[in-house]
Amino acid sequence: MARWQPGARDRLVLAAVDLFADQGYDSTTVAQIAEKAGVTKSTFFRHFPDKRELLVAGQETLCRLLIEGIAEAPEDAGPLDAIAAGLERAANAMGPMNRELGPRLKAAIAASTELQERDALKSVGLAKAMTDALLARGVPDPLAHLAAELGVLAFKRGYATWMELDHDEDGLAPQVLAALAELRAASASLG
Amino acid sequence: MARWQPGARDRLVLAAVDLFADQGYDSTTVAQIAEKAGVTKSTFFRHFPDKRELLVAGQETLCRLLIEGIAEAPEDAGPLDAIAAGLERAANAMGPMNRELGPRLKAAIAASTELQERDALKSVGLAKAMTDALLARGVPDPLAHLAAELGVLAFKRGYATWMELDHDEDGLAPQVLAALAELRAASASLG
Repeated sequence: MARWQPGARDRLVLAAVDLFADQGYDSTTVAQIAEKAGVTKSTFFRHFPDKRELLVAGQETLCRLLIEGIAEAPEDAGPLDAIAAGLERAANAMGPMNRELGPRLKAAIAASTELQERDALKSVGLAKAMTDALLARGVPDPLAHLAAELGVLAFKRGYATWMELDHDEDGLAPQVLAALAELRAASASLG
Repeated sequence: MARWQPGARDRLVLAAVDLFADQGYDSTTVAQIAEKAGVTKSTFFRHFPDKRELLVAGQETLCRLLIEGIAEAPEDAGPLDAIAAGLERAANAMGPMNRELGPRLKAAIAASTELQERDALKSVGLAKAMTDALLARGVPDPLAHLAAELGVLAFKRGYATWMELDHDEDGLAPQVLAALAELRAASASLG
């Protein structure tokens, strides 16, 4: 099996995250990111308008996939089944790049308050996307909000497990769905 | 009944939040905050080391009260009953200043990505404080994490209701506990 080879866009993201971890987000320039990724600055700007956008790009795709998966779940699916459909759609779009990125991003976030704040806002954005998608299906509040928070927790927990696996056989989706099932059982026991 | 009169510290917080809403967090200086609050810059620095700390101070008190309330809940209290004890302790420390601050802070946050990021990190901090306090009571993960997320949602929802009341008869605690009861019922129905 051929080893995964990142393209220019993925190399830029990986280089940026490593530089953020080493020297901080603020101190890292586009020129440094391009140099570390082995591309020119104009290649950087073909992929991203600026340094900030590089972190936001993945987030938008993730939200879109979650929303699509929730919207297209069977009409009679309950809130957590719809969340499961959204999570599965999003997780199936995650490949070797995301597994590679995970631990590096974690290191960068641990080293920077600014990245911690952005990461927190990202979680809020994911929760909002899932809440709105459930409300659009007619799930009442606060049930929609609560189910969405379970979805965010499941995604994070599943991702953390996935990153730590020695070998990736089945991808991210089974890990996320297992985490959601565990949270569903916990939720029932809280009632 | 005497109208509530904010002291210098509260006036500084209110002035700062209004300036953040009007002209952004970055553009607001300590000198402007002091002037609007009708105090000197040295009075500002007697209360806060810098502009950033002004936003963080309330957060630390809130976390401490949540943790104390959870730790001191009866030994046989379940996870959500311990969360309720923490929320009640924290809510009882909130007075007219917090009701005054709420809508202004909401406006400031709506106007600033930076404040949105900080507010999101604040929610993560509250969830972590409550999760750790439950883990210390022997509540297993992910139950502890989930119960803490319900606590954060209950606090936010109760606070939002409280801010919108025409008259404040009973304080924040009943609103937060009602929100928690509603979330508990929703949680049971998700199982």
